[in-house]
Formats: sequence, C-alpha cells, structure tokens
Amino acid sequence: MAIPYPHFIASEKAAMEAGLLSPSQPSIILTQDDLKKIAAYKAVEYVKSGMVIGLGTGSTAKHAVARIGELLRQGKLKDIVGIPTSKMTHEQALSVGIPLSDLDSHPVIDIAIDGADEVDPYLNLVKGRGGSLLREKMVEGVCKKFLVIVDESKLVNYIGDSGLAMPVEVIQFCWKFTASKLQKLFEESGCEAKLRTFGEKKEPFVTDNGNYIIDLYFKESIGDLKVASDSILNLAGVVEHGIFLDMATTVIIAGELGLTVKNK
Amino acid sequence: MAIPYPHFIASEKAAMEAGLLSPSQPSIILTQDDLKKIAAYKAVEYVKSGMVIGLGTGSTAKHAVARIGELLRQGKLKDIVGIPTSKMTHEQALSVGIPLSDLDSHPVIDIAIDGADEVDPYLNLVKGRGGSLLREKMVEGVCKKFLVIVDESKLVNYIGDSGLAMPVEVIQFCWKFTASKLQKLFEESGCEAKLRTFGEKKEPFVTDNGNYIIDLYFKESIGDLKVASDSILNLAGVVEHGIFLDMATTVIIAGELGLTVKNK
Repeated sequence: MAIPYPHFIASEKAAMEAGLLSPSQPSIILTQDDLKKIAAYKAVEYVKSGMVIGLGTGSTAKHAVARIGELLRQGKLKDIVGIPTSKMTHEQALSVGIPLSDLDSHPVIDIAIDGADEVDPYLNLVKGRGGSLLREKMVEGVCKKFLVIVDESKLVNYIGDSGLAMPVEVIQFCWKFTASKLQKLFEESGCEAKLRTFGEKKEPFVTDNGNYIIDLYFKESIGDLKVASDSILNLAGVVEHGIFLDMATTVIIAGELGLTVKNK
Repeated sequence: MAIPYPHFIASEKAAMEAGLLSPSQPSIILTQDDLKKIAAYKAVEYVKSGMVIGLGTGSTAKHAVARIGELLRQGKLKDIVGIPTSKMTHEQALSVGIPLSDLDSHPVIDIAIDGADEVDPYLNLVKGRGGSLLREKMVEGVCKKFLVIVDESKLVNYIGDSGLAMPVEVIQFCWKFTASKLQKLFEESGCEAKLRTFGEKKEPFVTDNGNYIIDLYFKESIGDLKVASDSILNLAGVVEHGIFLDMATTVIIAGELGLTVKNK
C-alpha cells in the first residue's frame, strides 16, 4: 500500500528536503520529475557511511547521485565509494564530489540505485533505454541490495507491455543480420526490431562499449522471460539485453498518491 | 575409418594437386601443415559454382581460401561469393580473387569451411584461438553445411581436454572482473582465466570487434556443454565464447594414415 505523502513528508522530510514542499505550501501538483526525485531521495536513505554504491544512469538515477553528493558535502555521509554505470554518471558523480572506483577494484557492491523503464509484478525490469544496459547489468548483478526507483508510470503487467523499446546491445558487424534474427526470434509476439539512432542525421547510437542498440517492440507478451533471455544471448552478435531478471531486491515507486516500497 | 592416402591420392588427386606428392615420389613424411592442406583441399571439393561460401580464419582455413581462389582462376569454379569471418581472411580472399560480400547482403550461406582447435566425439568444437570466434560463429551459424577441417591432433575426448585455451570474447570494460567471474564459474574444473596478450610488451589482444579475449584453461571436463554455454553467455560482460555446440555438419580429419570424414 502506498504511504501518502503527508505522512511520508512528516516522517521522512524527504519531499521537503527535495524542495518540493514547504510548511507554508502543503499542497502542490507533482510532476513526473518530482516523483522521480522523491523515489530517488527515499532510496538514498538506505545508503550508510562506508558503503560501496553502484550509481545508475538516467533521469531518475541522476537525482540519487545528486543527493548522495549533497549528503557527502553536508557531512551526513562519509567514506562512500561510487561505482558508476556509464560515462555520463561518471561525469556527474565527479562533479558532485563522489569518490569513484570500478568493479575491478571493488567486485562487491553494498547497494546499487538505478531507475528502470518497466517493472513487472515480479520485480523483473526492462532497462537500457538510456543505452547503458550492459554496464548497469554488470554492476547491479553483484550488489547485495539493488534498489530500483521509478515513478508509477513504469509499472507494467508484463515485460514489453509499455509498447516502448526493449533494447539489445549488439556488435556493429552485420547488425542488420542480427536485427533480423532478433525480430524472427519473437515473430509470434509481433516483434519489430529497429536500430537506435540519434540526431537529425539519424546516425546509429553507439554505446559506451562501442556497440549498437537494436530496440525491440512487442505487440504481445514474449512468454517465459528466462527462455527469452537465453534465446537472445544465444544469438552470436548479441552482447547483452535489457531484461533484468530476478535482480531487483527493492522497488521504490513514487505515485501521485504516495510512495510504495516493494521488496523481493 | 580413415581412407589411406595412396587410395585417396589415386582417386582424388588432391595431395598431388596440393604439391605434396608426385608420381616419382610416392612416399613422403607429411608435416602438420601438409595435413591441414590435404583436409582443406578435400573440403573445397564440396564447393560448387554459384555457391555462397563462408570463409574461415586460421592456419588450416587459409589453405581452403587459397584453393578456392586457385579454382576460380583456373575457371573450374565460377560465380562464388565469399563471406569472410575476419579482417585477415577478407584480405587473403581479396588477394586471391574471391568476390566478397557479408551477412547483411547474404544471410543464407551454402557451405562454410573452417578449422577448429578441438573436435570432440560428438563434433562439438572449440574455436577462436585465432581470435575470430564471434564472426565465425555468426557466419557458421547460418550455413546449410559447415565443413570443419583439422589435422588429427585436434581430436579430443571432451571439450577442454587438449589443455589449450578455450577463448571467451569480453568487453574491455572491467575485464578483470569478468575474468574472475569466468574462473569462478568453472572452479570445480580447475579453471584458470588469462587475458590474451601479444608481442613483447604483452599488450592485450584486441578482436576485430574491439573486445578482449579471456582464455580459459581447464584441468577437468566442464560437464554439460549446453549448461556451460548458457552460464558463460549469462555473464554480463561476455560477448561470445569459443564452444561451437552442435554446429559442424561434417568434419574432415587428415591424419598420418589417411583422411577421415565424419558426418553428423
């Protein structure tokens, strides 16, 4: 059940600290970005001094990174080591003063905090619309606790249900061939496979690892996710996909009516 | 049963055409490279005019590429399209006059011919000691017939039994982390994971796709190969591995006592 914000605000002061509310202004209309910020601030309450923290990528995770930096500056957190999941997050974390390292030096992570593009009822996720699925999966696959922060628009009945992209990172070599293999794999789900492009010239989007992204769009459920995952990974040419199966330990959902925390 | 060379030579003229034997010199000692060449020439007999041919990479496959070029020049083959599995093979094929294309334009291949580093009794392979496992797997995964050409030293009782490397292509990002994950995966088989390097400075070997290779060495069998394959591919950071499961349709083995052809 969602914790309504008045209670949440009274007990946690998070929304107030996030600058969303003041005592003289008890009622406002929350934007989607406000909700992302509330979820992110809530997640950062789990972070304790001395922890190694996986830092996610995207419009929700950036609020968590900013908040950790703020608490470090205020002296409320110390001895934090951040493991960024993208070059973008690396830059942001440096700019807010979070000491950074990597998986080679810190192969065990206490908590990772990241957004998601879809969350199903079993806490399986789609991630990577921001393009960082591979590094995110590496980091978030080795954390003791993986906190996912989303606004309620990300909740779906089944993976693919949003009608938005499920990304697959592929090598550049013969990507058309790999795209057609992927489309064929999910033919029965009405799959359409598209190369991700950017800018006016529609140039291929290149990941931090030098690969392309094929976005898959489904008309219907793809069925058993473990089977789907193995089938995708078995295609030579595929590097990684954006289904995060059985990885999230906690999902923090900010909705208009309040915060909901779901644990695995 | 192996076909002894005198018979083979009489019927196929392959060894003679390969310049290994002449009527006046009926008996010679065959080197390992001679055996590779004999197997390669035998495989090229399967190639017919008009075919799309997957061209392998390595010290055995190069003899097949050279032979196809020779038959094209002699007019004994025509309308061949070659699909190279590496930049190196691309160069060699061009130099011997084989018209080339790629998987995007030719997603169906009639025959692929390639060497292997290990062949088990079920015709499962280890490939990629030459570093081209990924493109090889893409090409050889879509051919109607996959001819594997080896000298008899490549036959093993089980995958990994040669004590030589089983290569895994990984992204450069945090490769040490991925290497330790791989080693741990096969801890019970006494696995040792090493970054492939080259040259005096021991710089990391970089694949055609811009990735690194982690070579795995096993002391004992890794058990069910399908399970092993899925486990490796499920590690974020892994791009592809060198176990070619259930892909070879024919293996041509050149030994000191003659040629053996094994069909799936």
